[in-house]
Amino acid sequence: MSLYAASVPQLTKMLKGLSACIDKAVAHATAKGFDPAVFTTARLAPDQYPLTRQVQAACDAAKFAAARLTGKTAPSHPDTETTIPELKARIDSVVEYLAGFSEKDFEGAKDRMISLPFFQGKAITSADYLNEMALPNFYFHVTTAYAILRHNGVDLGKRDFIGSLNLKDA
Amino acid sequence: MSLYAASVPQLTKMLKGLSACIDKAVAHATAKGFDPAVFTTARLAPDQYPLTRQVQAACDAAKFAAARLTGKTAPSHPDTETTIPELKARIDSVVEYLAGFSEKDFEGAKDRMISLPFFQGKAITSADYLNEMALPNFYFHVTTAYAILRHNGVDLGKRDFIGSLNLKDA
Repeated sequence: MSLYAASVPQLTKMLKGLSACIDKAVAHATAKGFDPAVFTTARLAPDQYPLTRQVQAACDAAKFAAARLTGKTAPSHPDTETTIPELKARIDSVVEYLAGFSEKDFEGAKDRMISLPFFQGKAITSADYLNEMALPNFYFHVTTAYAILRHNGVDLGKRDFIGSLNLKDA
Repeated sequence: MSLYAASVPQLTKMLKGLSACIDKAVAHATAKGFDPAVFTTARLAPDQYPLTRQVQAACDAAKFAAARLTGKTAPSHPDTETTIPELKARIDSVVEYLAGFSEKDFEGAKDRMISLPFFQGKAITSADYLNEMALPNFYFHVTTAYAILRHNGVDLGKRDFIGSLNLKDA
């Protein structure tokens, strides 16, 4: 299994799914007659990140996965989003960034050692980085964003999270 | 990257981490003087699974990933757990099941088409199954279990979720 196949297509699909969940939240707020922006500061615990930061962190996990696995520099995002449209634009920008990657960019990725800014003097293999950190961290933030919306009454189900599967006729 | 490396070791580590999070929840309940069993029925939304079912689902996602990728039949778990010790024993049993797998069991896994009981007449490649379903579903339930505990005051942090990384000297 290539590191590309294990990352870019799935991260892209999940980010689009997250954006669709946010659309459902906006529709819910509109139907109930409250400002959808209320969701942006909603959180599950007083010392846990609110929705906005969960979305930003999911976006960062995705962009850094693609960038670090291919030895590129990820684009900067200053985390200034405060509104639902800004959050959706942030997601769109990362989806667009991921669309610029192909299998070819990942040639040699399997032999790449990855340095992380928060572990000075240490490095991790590309496969361990993807499996132990990038994917768990990405799913952590997407799921928490989903849970915040679910906790606040948005009618989401597992299918909104998993999305479509690449099924073939058996 | 092998399908074994992308699944068994990481699923095992995450399940052990989930069990440790439950230990922290028990310690929290004990310190506050309430019955830790209260956590088992805690949930984030009235129509979402409570902690017990989240843990059971995480366990199932892990065992089915290993079983389906290798063409084996997963052991049956009748979902009868109602207490914290029973939930921890369920996790232990899946950790033990995963410990029985090695790279050798995954020989040929990359060419295996996987049938899913809820998609009759359809199948999915092993890599797509792992990337699109098994891993997202597993992380969904582990993260939701974590979020339920966090929402109920247990002092958990991201490190409890991510766990240790296989870092090497740079």
